[in-house]
Amino acid sequence: MLLPVETATNVLTTRFLAIRTQTEAICQPLQPEDTVVQPIVDVSPPKWHLAHTTWFFETFILQPHQPDYAVFHPKYNYLFNSYYNSIGSRVLRNQRGTLTRPNLQEVYQYRAYVNEQMQEFLTKASAEKLAEIAPVFELGLQHEQQHQELLITDIKYILSTNPLLPAYLPKQTKTVYSEALKPEMLPVKGGIHEIGYPGTDFCFDNELGVHKVYVDDFKIMNRLVTNGEYLEFMQAGGYEDFRHWLGEGFELAKTEHWQAPLYWVQHEDKWQHFTLHGLEEIDLHAPVTHISFYEANAYATWAGKRLLTEFEWEIACKQFHPDPANGNFLESKNFGTLPAKNTEGCAQLLGDLWEWTYSAYHPYPNYSKAPGALGEYNGKFMINQMVLRGGSCATPQSHIRPTYRNFFHPDKRWQFTGIRLAE
Amino acid sequence: MLLPVETATNVLTTRFLAIRTQTEAICQPLQPEDTVVQPIVDVSPPKWHLAHTTWFFETFILQPHQPDYAVFHPKYNYLFNSYYNSIGSRVLRNQRGTLTRPNLQEVYQYRAYVNEQMQEFLTKASAEKLAEIAPVFELGLQHEQQHQELLITDIKYILSTNPLLPAYLPKQTKTVYSEALKPEMLPVKGGIHEIGYPGTDFCFDNELGVHKVYVDDFKIMNRLVTNGEYLEFMQAGGYEDFRHWLGEGFELAKTEHWQAPLYWVQHEDKWQHFTLHGLEEIDLHAPVTHISFYEANAYATWAGKRLLTEFEWEIACKQFHPDPANGNFLESKNFGTLPAKNTEGCAQLLGDLWEWTYSAYHPYPNYSKAPGALGEYNGKFMINQMVLRGGSCATPQSHIRPTYRNFFHPDKRWQFTGIRLAE
Amino acid sequence: MLLPVETATNVLTTRFLAIRTQTEAICQPLQPEDTVVQPIVDVSPPKWHLAHTTWFFETFILQPHQPDYAVFHPKYNYLFNSYYNSIGSRVLRNQRGTLTRPNLQEVYQYRAYVNEQMQEFLTKASAEKLAEIAPVFELGLQHEQQHQELLITDIKYILSTNPLLPAYLPKQTKTVYSEALKPEMLPVKGGIHEIGYPGTDFCFDNELGVHKVYVDDFKIMNRLVTNGEYLEFMQAGGYEDFRHWLGEGFELAKTEHWQAPLYWVQHEDKWQHFTLHGLEEIDLHAPVTHISFYEANAYATWAGKRLLTEFEWEIACKQFHPDPANGNFLESKNFGTLPAKNTEGCAQLLGDLWEWTYSAYHPYPNYSKAPGALGEYNGKFMINQMVLRGGSCATPQSHIRPTYRNFFHPDKRWQFTGIRLAE
Amino acid sequence: MLLPVETATNVLTTRFLAIRTQTEAICQPLQPEDTVVQPIVDVSPPKWHLAHTTWFFETFILQPHQPDYAVFHPKYNYLFNSYYNSIGSRVLRNQRGTLTRPNLQEVYQYRAYVNEQMQEFLTKASAEKLAEIAPVFELGLQHEQQHQELLITDIKYILSTNPLLPAYLPKQTKTVYSEALKPEMLPVKGGIHEIGYPGTDFCFDNELGVHKVYVDDFKIMNRLVTNGEYLEFMQAGGYEDFRHWLGEGFELAKTEHWQAPLYWVQHEDKWQHFTLHGLEEIDLHAPVTHISFYEANAYATWAGKRLLTEFEWEIACKQFHPDPANGNFLESKNFGTLPAKNTEGCAQLLGDLWEWTYSAYHPYPNYSKAPGALGEYNGKFMINQMVLRGGSCATPQSHIRPTYRNFFHPDKRWQFTGIRLAE
Repeated sequence: MLLPVETATNVLTTRFLAIRTQTEAICQPLQPEDTVVQPIVDVSPPKWHLAHTTWFFETFILQPHQPDYAVFHPKYNYLFNSYYNSIGSRVLRNQRGTLTRPNLQEVYQYRAYVNEQMQEFLTKASAEKLAEIAPVFELGLQHEQQHQELLITDIKYILSTNPLLPAYLPKQTKTVYSEALKPEMLPVKGGIHEIGYPGTDFCFDNELGVHKVYVDDFKIMNRLVTNGEYLEFMQAGGYEDFRHWLGEGFELAKTEHWQAPLYWVQHEDKWQHFTLHGLEEIDLHAPVTHISFYEANAYATWAGKRLLTEFEWEIACKQFHPDPANGNFLESKNFGTLPAKNTEGCAQLLGDLWEWTYSAYHPYPNYSKAPGALGEYNGKFMINQMVLRGGSCATPQSHIRPTYRNFFHPDKRWQFTGIRLAE
Repeated sequence: MLLPVETATNVLTTRFLAIRTQTEAICQPLQPEDTVVQPIVDVSPPKWHLAHTTWFFETFILQPHQPDYAVFHPKYNYLFNSYYNSIGSRVLRNQRGTLTRPNLQEVYQYRAYVNEQMQEFLTKASAEKLAEIAPVFELGLQHEQQHQELLITDIKYILSTNPLLPAYLPKQTKTVYSEALKPEMLPVKGGIHEIGYPGTDFCFDNELGVHKVYVDDFKIMNRLVTNGEYLEFMQAGGYEDFRHWLGEGFELAKTEHWQAPLYWVQHEDKWQHFTLHGLEEIDLHAPVTHISFYEANAYATWAGKRLLTEFEWEIACKQFHPDPANGNFLESKNFGTLPAKNTEGCAQLLGDLWEWTYSAYHPYPNYSKAPGALGEYNGKFMINQMVLRGGSCATPQSHIRPTYRNFFHPDKRWQFTGIRLAE
Repeated sequence: MLLPVETATNVLTTRFLAIRTQTEAICQPLQPEDTVVQPIVDVSPPKWHLAHTTWFFETFILQPHQPDYAVFHPKYNYLFNSYYNSIGSRVLRNQRGTLTRPNLQEVYQYRAYVNEQMQEFLTKASAEKLAEIAPVFELGLQHEQQHQELLITDIKYILSTNPLLPAYLPKQTKTVYSEALKPEMLPVKGGIHEIGYPGTDFCFDNELGVHKVYVDDFKIMNRLVTNGEYLEFMQAGGYEDFRHWLGEGFELAKTEHWQAPLYWVQHEDKWQHFTLHGLEEIDLHAPVTHISFYEANAYATWAGKRLLTEFEWEIACKQFHPDPANGNFLESKNFGTLPAKNTEGCAQLLGDLWEWTYSAYHPYPNYSKAPGALGEYNGKFMINQMVLRGGSCATPQSHIRPTYRNFFHPDKRWQFTGIRLAE
Repeated sequence: MLLPVETATNVLTTRFLAIRTQTEAICQPLQPEDTVVQPIVDVSPPKWHLAHTTWFFETFILQPHQPDYAVFHPKYNYLFNSYYNSIGSRVLRNQRGTLTRPNLQEVYQYRAYVNEQMQEFLTKASAEKLAEIAPVFELGLQHEQQHQELLITDIKYILSTNPLLPAYLPKQTKTVYSEALKPEMLPVKGGIHEIGYPGTDFCFDNELGVHKVYVDDFKIMNRLVTNGEYLEFMQAGGYEDFRHWLGEGFELAKTEHWQAPLYWVQHEDKWQHFTLHGLEEIDLHAPVTHISFYEANAYATWAGKRLLTEFEWEIACKQFHPDPANGNFLESKNFGTLPAKNTEGCAQLLGDLWEWTYSAYHPYPNYSKAPGALGEYNGKFMINQMVLRGGSCATPQSHIRPTYRNFFHPDKRWQFTGIRLAE
């Protein structure tokens, strides 16, 4: 069913502008210099994120669908294509941090131009045209939300490399809990379950191929592992004892001299950590974050437990916490973790931290790539990465679902990642 | 139930000597110089394999169980420990090819010494002692069989790097089939299946944790993909078209200039390949081998099919071909692939080639590592590798089972790997 | 003899401010984003140059000599120390491009603060104090002039990596010569010559140890090698023929796919080059620049000539062109090379381009390092580098002398380097 | 003047066979396995040295000058060409250690075949032909002597990487000196001196271009720096104090964790070193060896002295010790250093150790490369390397002269290198 054009246009325009504005709000505290650099290949310059999300709408909506559309600049496709081979050659990913031009102001002009053109397009498009572009339009919005999360984590990394340890924002007051939620292993009933997104709203192609999975009964911890618990692992020599570790993880930890999560620094025998509010004391009751899959798995082994599979996680989430309302998300503006609230059931499943699962990021049965460039969105990454579930304090709340599959290589630490135990 | 000591001793000794002798028979065609080098880190020098398999019995049987056992040489533990952190420090893996001493003759003396000591130990051990050491003794034999396969593949690689292209052995006559078995997609019934080794004989710990898995109905091709079929992929520009490839695979193929399987060389517009019998014409009807997971998956995508999961493969193997008898194994002495015979059912499941599956090598539910050093045998590798199934023309026949899980990183090509399609 | 304090102060202050202002004038056309990045390790961010030259005065004048001096920021020593081990730990050289803070405006505040403090110091200092700090004060000014040149070459490199090919400045009209000066080999008389700086004004320690050198009679070309001449070398297959090249140079040229000088790009069979005014036609009569020592030497070999030694160069310069007046220097604001004027004698010796000599950068006899941190200024670089002579179009005119020894590794191309032939 | 053919033939044949036999005598203590490996790229497998020196005679004498000469094997040119681009493509230098074939026995057959063919050629050649090939024949012999030295140093390195620390040969008794020769700085008169080989016998092209050099008066130490003296430098923290070091040397020493010369190992607070006779106590009176240029220069700086230039060294050698008789050379079979004898004048100038000079390896004035492949012998290496003088305990005595220029990169340590001080 098609919405009346005018209504549809209003809904789409409002949502479009809300998300576009949110991206710029994230960058508002930055100085132009902050938006240029790429200290490691994983981290893209904020200026690049601002332009690349704009390029998406220009390339996949305006160019094919807006008659006589004039691109803002003929070389921006080369500059701001991320990884779409179908769309032609591009700046190498590891060279993004050398591009000083267009400068930040020009990138904002690019955003304004595309925003205007999009508004005009949405206003003038027929109901059929709106229906035709709906999937890619929605993908563009979801894509921009993904980059909102990356902006937060990339800004954190960029500022962290600076010996001046600058804060992104001054700290807001936040609720302090007097103690951590007591850990408890909650039973979940096994059997055959349906996995994958069953609805008709937007989801990514990697959630499709709804299919049956059999799992045994299992137990899941009622909250994430805390900084205090992780510190015990560290103090018990966890980083030195190969028996807890996967081989490649242990070698990497040695090579990289890992002794603690990323952003932790030891100062006169006391651990602190760099946050988006600058250097801070560690809250022992808040969940530990910025750990790799290797560390998550080593911790679980040391604790005599294990990580969940992505299927177990999805089953538990659908049972305990299918709705993201009230979670610790981007909109909460904590820009970091909070201790688990003393809720019934299972805390922190949606929001707070992406939870490493012991599942490789592979296609579901019957997975099929979209044709054309957008087929490169997810499918080509389905090797050598692990699935993370649940969203984080940097994820927009409207972006997450119990079936959402995020994925990173097992050595990555700069995302808001966490540990949930099972047995 | 314990066997009468004498009988048990005879059985064990006979089997021990048969496997030990087989290892030396594999190395018999080599010259001392061939046994020293390590052209890439994956490939170990044959001399090292000969010593390392011997070290296993010395370290895990003779030293702990034979009273007053005198080690053959006090530094051999340091030299021939492969990756057991529990057993102490060792020569770095990438330095194995610098060790010219002990020389080949001394390594054979080491083997003879340990063989004698093992025979004496088996002869004198009580029934209780035999029962106690039985698991690790059997593991030692299975371990040596694994190294027999590695000897074949490593020898092939070593000889292949030599511009003289020396043959390992002259070619035996082998049956020639006038044409390839016609490809057919055989249906397999889905539902809940039991996965893992259900018996009481030896299996590796990674096959345990028998558990239920649900799969949908699927179809499996009745033979492996042939050289002729793979050549069509090559000629259709398969190595140049990113759409068929996983992203990391395509980048690697570009960086490494892959244009064909490993060992294929183009000579005046005609492809040949290096084999253990020297340079040979390519048999278009024989299965294609020495391809990475990336190539296997790209081929399957191009062909409009997919690879199997390891669960589907195991279900199909148990149904079509549970018994390795009559397969193309090490004992067949083909040292290479053969065209599929025109059998009923599904050809080449056991033997010929290890089949890449689209399953990551992860622990089964309820997997538990053995305590002590042998816990390092399998568990610590359970990340970043893909499962291969079915054994190859370099695998000893008595070493394989339908539940056997082999594993390599998705970029590896020097093993006898192959492609089976599903849909 | 000490100058009257007031006069001395005025002279020093005037010179100090002139040089400090000149540095900022160089950066004036840049946008904040341009001043942050470090596309290769050789190239430092302009913001870093601005701060590091300031740090020099703070560290070597104000901190030791100005009582109660308060450093502008306690961490700036860590951030802006370049390579002085004596002064403590510092940001790794290859991490300069990750520092977004202090931002450009804060760096200018730092400059203003130190400038004020320096003026106050110079005003209040006694004649004895002025005499005491005179050498390091002068070194600070010369040091800043060196960074002025580096600013020009680093800005050029930074802009060149941008696919938008932005100009640093629009082009000024420049004199056009209808043809190149006809090449001529000018004879120079050999024998024993004095080498090194003989005067009492400022020179670097690497010019000292005035000493005798014997050279045979030789001939020197009356101008630098032109783009047109170099193009002949290219078109004759010069980059492909190993016979002209030093072994390590040829291997590097192959690995890096060198086909032309740095910044040359081929567009529809026509060579252009990126300049500080953007992409331009190549002036065949202007000297070729941005070539490595390897290319300079390969060209000379191909041309049947050779490069000069640094001693021959110095002898010739003292004879033909001891005075930098009227050369093509930074102050000429050409920011690039010009064809040789039809002068008497030997053109382009001072200014235009640094001329690669076939002399390693080693200490002169009786060379002695200064005590303390400033001993690290030159001495520790006296290995693996080649001497360049004469200054370039990016060198401040007052900075150069016939005895001046510049030095770079033989593979470097981003400086304004050129070729002069001898026989 | 031509010798009577028969006499010339006898002289040439005798010398040829003597040198060829000497090479094989060096390899006689090795086992086949020792002759294959290449633990670092600098070190070639002994089997390769044996074949490459043979290839030289086949390629430069027999193929061009012996009518109807049949090469021993058509692929050996590809296998055993070292670096002559003129002679065609070849095995990459870093791949020499992967070549197990031809095996050692086949390489000896290759040597025997070429020896026979050479003898036949020398017997049958006319006086004119002998005169024509004389230069390249002599070069072949000198070349083989160079590889004799490399065989010794490469064998030492290969055995040293083995944890069994095998000896090349058991130790011979050697004269023990009760104490080191007292160090003394001997004055040498400066002025204009002639540098380069002035005679008519064989010398390398890099010694030619006899030319005048001016040096000031200088002083030279009467012996090499001893292990005991170097140990003082180590114990004074020499490896930790950047002030003594060239910058690139200090960084390398940190990266490589250098704490002592190559082959020194600390065992229970006592230093020992690996020698060709196995692990040994360090003789405090013997000269220190296996140090890089960086270490040599750091030692000299620490000691308040300096290294010599190659010109000073040559002048001193011609004055004090022009004749290699009675030096510690390969023929002495010490395979290591000896304390300086209490001689008059300046000890250890020829023999014992190659002495690092602070002179880059550049062409002499008027240096000219030979035409054709042999022009690649020396000239293309004239960059980034330092000159060493005097020969070592691994150099054949008849191979050395006061004008002989050896050269290595300043980081190399596996040659028999030493330190002589000047001031």
